[in-house]
Amino acid sequence: MIKDNKNAGNLIVRPIGIVRNNNNEPSLVAGNEGIKMKEQNKANMKQIRQINEEISEIIIDNDIIDILEGVEKYSHLIILYWAHKVPEQSRSLTKVHPMGRECFSKVGIFATCSPARPNPILMTVVRLHGIRGNVLEVTGLDAVDGSPVVDIKPYVRNFYPEDKISIPEWMQQIHKEFEENSFKNS
Amino acid sequence: MIKDNKNAGNLIVRPIGIVRNNNNEPSLVAGNEGIKMKEQNKANMKQIRQINEEISEIIIDNDIIDILEGVEKYSHLIILYWAHKVPEQSRSLTKVHPMGRECFSKVGIFATCSPARPNPILMTVVRLHGIRGNVLEVTGLDAVDGSPVVDIKPYVRNFYPEDKISIPEWMQQIHKEFEENSFKNS
Repeated sequence: MIKDNKNAGNLIVRPIGIVRNNNNEPSLVAGNEGIKMKEQNKANMKQIRQINEEISEIIIDNDIIDILEGVEKYSHLIILYWAHKVPEQSRSLTKVHPMGRECFSKVGIFATCSPARPNPILMTVVRLHGIRGNVLEVTGLDAVDGSPVVDIKPYVRNFYPEDKISIPEWMQQIHKEFEENSFKNS
Repeated sequence: MIKDNKNAGNLIVRPIGIVRNNNNEPSLVAGNEGIKMKEQNKANMKQIRQINEEISEIIIDNDIIDILEGVEKYSHLIILYWAHKVPEQSRSLTKVHPMGRECFSKVGIFATCSPARPNPILMTVVRLHGIRGNVLEVTGLDAVDGSPVVDIKPYVRNFYPEDKISIPEWMQQIHKEFEENSFKNS
């Protein structure tokens, strides 16, 4: 696909672990036409809030358990996982309605957090609660049960920009709704 | 490798773009035994600082150019790219000296930002300076020239934790050295 790249070609990702939690269905469902929210907006916001509170387990392949040494010194970790419930054909979508909501105009997928993307690698910063052998206990992981984990990285706040950040209006609105819903129900 | 995961198996990543810049050599070089810094610590810090100032181009596959629509509304983006200069055999390493420095004890790779990792997908938050067709102009990208790009995501600060973050002492030390070097030379 990329003509001027002599290194182009498919790259092989090997899952190094798996997510175990009670989150059985993704809140955004990807189909041929784009993404759709599973439920009403408010129910969806509630689901997202619950995820933030519930413990997920990340079970790391026992053969590489040494790779976790020292991870316990971090309060937060970055988890890269594969959106395995996204159908293969959704990887060729280029534009979607943000959060599957038709009130927002379609935008390019790289401007969104849509799970339907050319390479469905999703990223979340989680709080680490504990480690038992090859099992990490975390909160804040928005992955569904059974998601293959592809990488874990330390979360170091100083690596992130401190200067002025700008985001589009529709993203500001989604965030505002989420915050309002969180406060009302907590 | 992961016995209790019926979805286990290799996952296919298709590069969606390529990095073009003047950064021809990674500052950390991965070998069979671990990672080594290319140069003295101070020179290395200087290279990292230069990367933060120089423009990199990210050339997106023209066939999917629509995927960029709306990206220009963000000041910062998250770039996921493949560390293509890491030899295949380095993917089986589990522990390294942080930054390749033997003064730090070996730790598990998931506690480090080492490019040698089971899936060499690296992540940087960049500042977006402009878009010309299928070319993004960014600063802060620590990828070497020719790196395959695998995903682009919006950077939305509110998605990141605001609570107390803790990191290991060695990571604090590396960050302190980097800051001191930056100030001395700027």
